[in-house]
Amino acid sequence: LLNIKKPSFIIDKEKCFNNIRRFVQKAGKHDLIFRPHFKTHQSAVIGEWFRESGVSKIAVSSVGMAQYFASHGWNDITIAMPVNPLQIHEINELASRIRLNIIILSEETYSLLEQHLRFPAGIFIEIDNGYNRTGLIYDEINSIDKLLEKFGRNPFMTFSGFLCHAGNTYTKRNFEEISQIHEDAISKLKKLKELYNTSGTTIISYGDTPSCSLMKNFDGIDEIRPGNFVFYDIMQQQIGSCGFEDISAILAVPVLAKHYQRNEIVVEGGAIHLSKDYITGSNLNNIYGYPVFFDGKTWSVPDGESYVRSLSQEHGVIKCSGNFFDSVKPGDVIGIMPAHSCLTAHQMRNYITTDGEIIGTMNS
Amino acid sequence: LLNIKKPSFIIDKEKCFNNIRRFVQKAGKHDLIFRPHFKTHQSAVIGEWFRESGVSKIAVSSVGMAQYFASHGWNDITIAMPVNPLQIHEINELASRIRLNIIILSEETYSLLEQHLRFPAGIFIEIDNGYNRTGLIYDEINSIDKLLEKFGRNPFMTFSGFLCHAGNTYTKRNFEEISQIHEDAISKLKKLKELYNTSGTTIISYGDTPSCSLMKNFDGIDEIRPGNFVFYDIMQQQIGSCGFEDISAILAVPVLAKHYQRNEIVVEGGAIHLSKDYITGSNLNNIYGYPVFFDGKTWSVPDGESYVRSLSQEHGVIKCSGNFFDSVKPGDVIGIMPAHSCLTAHQMRNYITTDGEIIGTMNS
Repeated sequence: LLNIKKPSFIIDKEKCFNNIRRFVQKAGKHDLIFRPHFKTHQSAVIGEWFRESGVSKIAVSSVGMAQYFASHGWNDITIAMPVNPLQIHEINELASRIRLNIIILSEETYSLLEQHLRFPAGIFIEIDNGYNRTGLIYDEINSIDKLLEKFGRNPFMTFSGFLCHAGNTYTKRNFEEISQIHEDAISKLKKLKELYNTSGTTIISYGDTPSCSLMKNFDGIDEIRPGNFVFYDIMQQQIGSCGFEDISAILAVPVLAKHYQRNEIVVEGGAIHLSKDYITGSNLNNIYGYPVFFDGKTWSVPDGESYVRSLSQEHGVIKCSGNFFDSVKPGDVIGIMPAHSCLTAHQMRNYITTDGEIIGTMNS
Repeated sequence: LLNIKKPSFIIDKEKCFNNIRRFVQKAGKHDLIFRPHFKTHQSAVIGEWFRESGVSKIAVSSVGMAQYFASHGWNDITIAMPVNPLQIHEINELASRIRLNIIILSEETYSLLEQHLRFPAGIFIEIDNGYNRTGLIYDEINSIDKLLEKFGRNPFMTFSGFLCHAGNTYTKRNFEEISQIHEDAISKLKKLKELYNTSGTTIISYGDTPSCSLMKNFDGIDEIRPGNFVFYDIMQQQIGSCGFEDISAILAVPVLAKHYQRNEIVVEGGAIHLSKDYITGSNLNNIYGYPVFFDGKTWSVPDGESYVRSLSQEHGVIKCSGNFFDSVKPGDVIGIMPAHSCLTAHQMRNYITTDGEIIGTMNS
């Protein structure tokens, strides 16, 4: 049994492997390239778990993350962010030794790269399906045309296809609404493919964890890039992407104080561990995580009443059910299922499996 | 001029020193022990800036942070969190070589320490002024009495006084309301002092950045422990603790994309850089930071219109005024004044001064 003394990110390796295998199988079944997003775990060790499951292509969210995974033997990497032209030197270095895909969504950025890219890179045009984060709007055919006209002026820049992150699924909490966003997004992408796939090589890269978990129609899609599913979290559970039993990681935290008047406990585990991301409870309250019992090896499911109600830098305040409150005391360790496992994992930087293996990351 | 290529935490050393000096002077003027909270910067280098300004006592928020600063020559440290009894070994080690103060707020925790503490430590009892995070409620005289009765059973545990963090000032946005919380809190603490200061050595330790910035009455208070003021941020500006010109740190970020239809730009700078903490705008919208122009040396003040409207893991989306939007393009670097500088600093782990000095932290 693990002997935890301070906030620690704990991984159940078997649950993690199950999540990976399920997605590998689903991608195979739908004849999709599976390019998992490694921003969630940022770990070469966990990367190997994917490799053992047959994965060879990955997505990352920064040039630094691409460098880290390239140095751990990954040689087909998409940097799934609009390219940062200031890092052209690092991009050239990466493109010189791996198959690198980058994202462009403006003529301005194309021109900057055109002048400086010295090695072959696949170029994706990001499409905004209505999420309103970034990307060219799917029906701005003029902008897409103008950008595509530029290709060919730098022979290292090959148009690879369209990439989309339908992140608006994260705001939905039922199958119907997610299905609606998903069907809408893939039909938009399919139209683009029909318009622009003259060479027959245009790839449509798509996928967030909610739609990749829940949907069964990937018509027109060639590749999926979900990330969060490897750990899942209570946001995904609330969305409906997973059950509590699929959540493969918790934050283990020491109990510091009990407040009898308000059935609340205070733990060492705050914003610098869990992040300040939250889900919204039925009273429109913020929920930063659900406490669970943790015996150093396995953890329970949330009791449906207890939740982390507030976080400051290092303190977490947990509103408890009567049973949860009565069962813990200062000096105990409990688990918290995080609201957002990607941010929690990023902040914790090292993980421990329930078997006691220490897992490093690019942030270790 | 700094040559920034990726998200970087930039410090204006002069502004930082001015903030430190102002607080040293204010504490001196009111005859208060100044024990700044080092959780905000977590840096031995910035610690030296405090030492040069005459500071010798500090507060921290974890045992690990106490170990770090003790190894950098700080020998009077208060761990301003309810003590984590699981780290008794580390606490004993620290207590054996520095003047260490810890916090207890229950008989349960007292008993755990009573059995295991082997070196002298000052013990503060945390008092809850109504903030509802942690601490004994100020008028629970019974609980306080019972806890105090236990002192003496372990000769290493010396009752040092009462400690309070009136964190509810953070929810207020005007002088009157902050003043009300402050006056209420200090009058409660003063009563406790009158009741329990039989030895004449009971210390009242108090202080958050809003009240220490704004208030002039510290009657009954012996010590203040603000932390955020060293950098300040737009939350403190909104509260009224500081002006924009006092904010001594920004996050410098590369501009990745412009979205002309909605006057928004996308930067590389997301939740893993800024944290997901936010202030609330006049339309009840979340504001994660204000963009400013940054020339590699100095930065502008916010324009009153532009703000960071959403953050995902690495992306920041900024709603821009016409002028701000027209003035930037992909490949530029801008600054963001963070909503919460403590969390931003923690996540960034290394800082750069506008003079080009790289500043390490305990998380480097």
